[in-house]
Amino acid sequence: MKKTLPLIASLVSLAALPAMAQDAAPAEAADAVSADVVYIFNTLLFLIGGFLVMWMAAGFAMLEAGLVRSKNVTTQLFKNVSLFAIAGIMYWIVGYNLMYPGDGWTVPGVIGQLFSPKAMDPVGAGDVTAGYSAGSDFFFQLMFCATTASIVSGTLAERIKLWPFMIFTVILTGFIYPIEASWQWGGGFLSEMGFSDFAGSTLVHATGGFAALAGAIVLGARYGKYRPDGRQHPMPGSNLALATLGTFILWLGWFGFNGASQLALGSVNDAADVSRIFVNTNMAASAGAVAAIITSQLMFGKIDLTMVLNGALAGLVSITAEPLTPSVFAAILIGGVGGAIAVVVVPMLDKMKIDDVVGAIPVHLVAGIWGTIIVPATNPDTSFITQIIGVAAIGAFTFVVSMVIWMVLKATMGIRVDQETEINGLDVSELGMEAYPDFVQAK
Amino acid sequence: MKKTLPLIASLVSLAALPAMAQDAAPAEAADAVSADVVYIFNTLLFLIGGFLVMWMAAGFAMLEAGLVRSKNVTTQLFKNVSLFAIAGIMYWIVGYNLMYPGDGWTVPGVIGQLFSPKAMDPVGAGDVTAGYSAGSDFFFQLMFCATTASIVSGTLAERIKLWPFMIFTVILTGFIYPIEASWQWGGGFLSEMGFSDFAGSTLVHATGGFAALAGAIVLGARYGKYRPDGRQHPMPGSNLALATLGTFILWLGWFGFNGASQLALGSVNDAADVSRIFVNTNMAASAGAVAAIITSQLMFGKIDLTMVLNGALAGLVSITAEPLTPSVFAAILIGGVGGAIAVVVVPMLDKMKIDDVVGAIPVHLVAGIWGTIIVPATNPDTSFITQIIGVAAIGAFTFVVSMVIWMVLKATMGIRVDQETEINGLDVSELGMEAYPDFVQAK
Amino acid sequence: MKKTLPLIASLVSLAALPAMAQDAAPAEAADAVSADVVYIFNTLLFLIGGFLVMWMAAGFAMLEAGLVRSKNVTTQLFKNVSLFAIAGIMYWIVGYNLMYPGDGWTVPGVIGQLFSPKAMDPVGAGDVTAGYSAGSDFFFQLMFCATTASIVSGTLAERIKLWPFMIFTVILTGFIYPIEASWQWGGGFLSEMGFSDFAGSTLVHATGGFAALAGAIVLGARYGKYRPDGRQHPMPGSNLALATLGTFILWLGWFGFNGASQLALGSVNDAADVSRIFVNTNMAASAGAVAAIITSQLMFGKIDLTMVLNGALAGLVSITAEPLTPSVFAAILIGGVGGAIAVVVVPMLDKMKIDDVVGAIPVHLVAGIWGTIIVPATNPDTSFITQIIGVAAIGAFTFVVSMVIWMVLKATMGIRVDQETEINGLDVSELGMEAYPDFVQAK
Repeated sequence: MKKTLPLIASLVSLAALPAMAQDAAPAEAADAVSADVVYIFNTLLFLIGGFLVMWMAAGFAMLEAGLVRSKNVTTQLFKNVSLFAIAGIMYWIVGYNLMYPGDGWTVPGVIGQLFSPKAMDPVGAGDVTAGYSAGSDFFFQLMFCATTASIVSGTLAERIKLWPFMIFTVILTGFIYPIEASWQWGGGFLSEMGFSDFAGSTLVHATGGFAALAGAIVLGARYGKYRPDGRQHPMPGSNLALATLGTFILWLGWFGFNGASQLALGSVNDAADVSRIFVNTNMAASAGAVAAIITSQLMFGKIDLTMVLNGALAGLVSITAEPLTPSVFAAILIGGVGGAIAVVVVPMLDKMKIDDVVGAIPVHLVAGIWGTIIVPATNPDTSFITQIIGVAAIGAFTFVVSMVIWMVLKATMGIRVDQETEINGLDVSELGMEAYPDFVQAK
Repeated sequence: MKKTLPLIASLVSLAALPAMAQDAAPAEAADAVSADVVYIFNTLLFLIGGFLVMWMAAGFAMLEAGLVRSKNVTTQLFKNVSLFAIAGIMYWIVGYNLMYPGDGWTVPGVIGQLFSPKAMDPVGAGDVTAGYSAGSDFFFQLMFCATTASIVSGTLAERIKLWPFMIFTVILTGFIYPIEASWQWGGGFLSEMGFSDFAGSTLVHATGGFAALAGAIVLGARYGKYRPDGRQHPMPGSNLALATLGTFILWLGWFGFNGASQLALGSVNDAADVSRIFVNTNMAASAGAVAAIITSQLMFGKIDLTMVLNGALAGLVSITAEPLTPSVFAAILIGGVGGAIAVVVVPMLDKMKIDDVVGAIPVHLVAGIWGTIIVPATNPDTSFITQIIGVAAIGAFTFVVSMVIWMVLKATMGIRVDQETEINGLDVSELGMEAYPDFVQAK
Repeated sequence: MKKTLPLIASLVSLAALPAMAQDAAPAEAADAVSADVVYIFNTLLFLIGGFLVMWMAAGFAMLEAGLVRSKNVTTQLFKNVSLFAIAGIMYWIVGYNLMYPGDGWTVPGVIGQLFSPKAMDPVGAGDVTAGYSAGSDFFFQLMFCATTASIVSGTLAERIKLWPFMIFTVILTGFIYPIEASWQWGGGFLSEMGFSDFAGSTLVHATGGFAALAGAIVLGARYGKYRPDGRQHPMPGSNLALATLGTFILWLGWFGFNGASQLALGSVNDAADVSRIFVNTNMAASAGAVAAIITSQLMFGKIDLTMVLNGALAGLVSITAEPLTPSVFAAILIGGVGGAIAVVVVPMLDKMKIDDVVGAIPVHLVAGIWGTIIVPATNPDTSFITQIIGVAAIGAFTFVVSMVIWMVLKATMGIRVDQETEINGLDVSELGMEAYPDFVQAK
């Protein structure tokens, strides 16, 4: 990838020029809005952004329910509901405090606080000097934590046991995500270094992707997926309408994900910035979809709907690290490359026999890394080196810790259903409940 | 339930302490926002809250379409669309005026006004002294009326005739709901007594539940549901993906339902309060889902997805009576108990042979009562006695009036399809239209 | 239709009277909100409206996926995702600039600018004197362009080839829509004449409908749809749950579509106006659904769910040309007539053997014209003559240009799949990918 980087980077840099104009916005504008009104606007941005990101949980649920086979749909739905519920509780008990330790780091810049009395009620009273309601911030941040967990469930579908998955979710949402996110958003060592990840291409998406990759390696591929002769057995998703719905939900939710990551709406400049983020987010998604159409037509000689859906999502992931400084054209380039990645990486994973049921690794991990590393092309306050260090640090931590946890879970309670259960489907064996009991299933 | 109440109440009271801090918020803040800006913020809150609650209509439609058998899906979808349309028109013709009579009560504090000229156009011009746009308030309140009707349709699914259901909806949305809601939100006798129901655990959810319960009793169970030997025949829902989608939609919509019931966003304190409501609402839902997972595992030895969905919804219903005064921990306790209720009540209903197809009675009625009665544990301005009186008054009125209407409808036009129609499914017999005609159905 | 018009118009005029009161709102109110706050509110309105209209893309996707047969679902989903992506890119490359030429008309009042340097980055910096963020406006307007394209895809379903459809989408979103929309919203000749189309009954909906009609004529009916004996063969949609979901999504998104077309939220009067628009939009949809229930019961002796869904949508389309000046009662009349149109026009199209798979022509074209022409009944600043001229001009342009393009596409690459592909379904032949592979299909 290195060879093509300079070319793309310079293209993107050129394209980025018009967007720079926003630095010239009048400085006196900030005084015209009273502190109370600023507080209300900022809080409102968090609340709207938060409910849009909450909605992404439904998006992941539908996307994954649509991409697994019908015999595993109930299980996949259950995992998506339960992980969202667990994330809420774990992030409250320990995660939020670990992520935003303020002055209370346990290991400065690396590990926050496990407990503080204030953490029991992170909401607090209205305090205009804070600039926004603490509760709205907690609400918004919680949804990012839940998103990270949602990413993992798709990759490991159709063969993982319920309870170990839920235990991993507890650890991911309570500890892994909050700790690595504290390095940047909590004011930890990456933020001191100058790392930049606006809304979490790496902190959320690649983190979820690394955790999923570790799980996929420990868990192994689905029975019959990779044949001894090297060919792979297609296992098409059971409901592409749901998968498409899930993609549209995610696309919608992403306006909250990226837009409210501006963290402020109380000035003319902030409102203009949020607007640019909305536009760039949409353009990157559009470009990702179009790039995936072209790439899949070129690579496979036909258009693959799931590739197009993943292309749009990869475009969204790619722009997430920096949705503000790119011009519209740059956003299209960044998202377009992301969309192509989503297609190109799939056969690579298959070659390595890493079985990623929904394509979360290309979309969230690889495109997330791409988006993070390309930030300096449009944001002059960042450097390629620092971006790479940031990705490497978060990647190493998340991947190694996840790997250890998956291996411990495997050694103790086991993480994989037995072969018969897998063949019959997890819904009947694990939950005793079919998703579509009235419909006659093929085979 | 009485015995455990004091224990839970004191736990919740302890947990509630941190939340009290918000009373100490600075008093001078309110002056910093101009009346016009307050008006716009308040109006915006109603509009955003209103469209989120409108979206709950889709949530009920998907939840119910997923939980009925495939042969009754079209009918269930039709009922959900038509009841929402009917609610809009009836609430405009008569309901809004009945619910907010101002000084024009027909029976003071009990029955509002059937007609006033202003009711024909409840929207009006912008009047900054009102503090919010009348049209936005009408829009928001209308959606609550529609929600009440949505609750009824699920319980009575798979055997009720279309037209009597629609006639009942006309009466419920035009008269029953507006009258009982006027007792509290219209400034009627319950509000004078000090009853408290922030966003309608009882006024909306238990009311819908009481109307559904009356209907279920008059209508009787589905053919073959309860066997002579006392066992019940499971009739699983046909599409759990839709049911899960519906639950996520409702979860999302609830932020509008509870959050905008603050009725104000034009001050720092109001913005902080809306934020706390968002957090508590989410936490109660999460806790409800987790409690349902644990309860169903303990009671039935397995996890039941529909129970988990209903657990989340019951958590939401439970916190609706008071989403503001609880601390986060208290919200988790309140929602968690609600989630457990949703599981525990199901076999009780089955023992009484009350056939509630989607579980609306445990979720909306029983958890709604729980949420209303526990309010004094976190809100010192309320009393257990008054809460019980409020629930009893609304419950008695709604249940008795509904019962009479269902019996009159039964005696006149009949409310139940004949047995053959029921066995063949209402879609073919009543509407001549299958929901999934291309798919081969089991049996 | 002419004969009944005067009666309806006078009814509507009477009904409209109460709504006129808003003209009396105090004029001094505008000064109370600072320019910065006005800017933020206006921008926020565009962003919220924009994401709601974006969500309509999902609504069209679900509606159409539900109304086609299962063998064509993947294709229909793909078309809806790809057209949305294409619209984003084309509107940026050329459309936005064509639509809003400012002083740079190529043909004054008729054809805007094909290119200007600023168009490459239409977002710009925060400029308080503009009154709103340029980026938020671009975002909002883009979604209208995408909506126009969404309307076309449903009509032509189940027999059109993928690539010609995508080429037409490129031309529609890049040229046809922006040019005709510039005539009104870009300050072109229709706006100079006094034509009025608040949120696009004609500019968006009828335009999409005219393009679809031209396509349907050139493409011809589905194989076997119209029998030699004059009867038509019903081809029911494969998933009415999805169709209902799509309708609810569209209903929700329409609050953004109409509400944010007020283009301002920064004053008491604007907030009140947006509220009225929300109420009228909802009421027109409700009335459309109820009118369709009654009309389909009268015409066909039974209720047809898809007619009811289309009735609600036709109510929404009808009120879109003027959601502000009607009283609530007038909105109900306008929407109700729209809902009846959606039912009545269907057999007329069938008689002409125009095969409109999802009913987009009655809903978007005919109800769109109705809504546009009835505007003067409630808005005294408009005239029936001008409204008719506007519809005729846009209709003639869109229909003729679309017809030419469809015929050129037909003559060059062909626009219709061969008969065998059509019978087997486009999913397997065109995409090699079934939407529901695990389910046994009927026949």
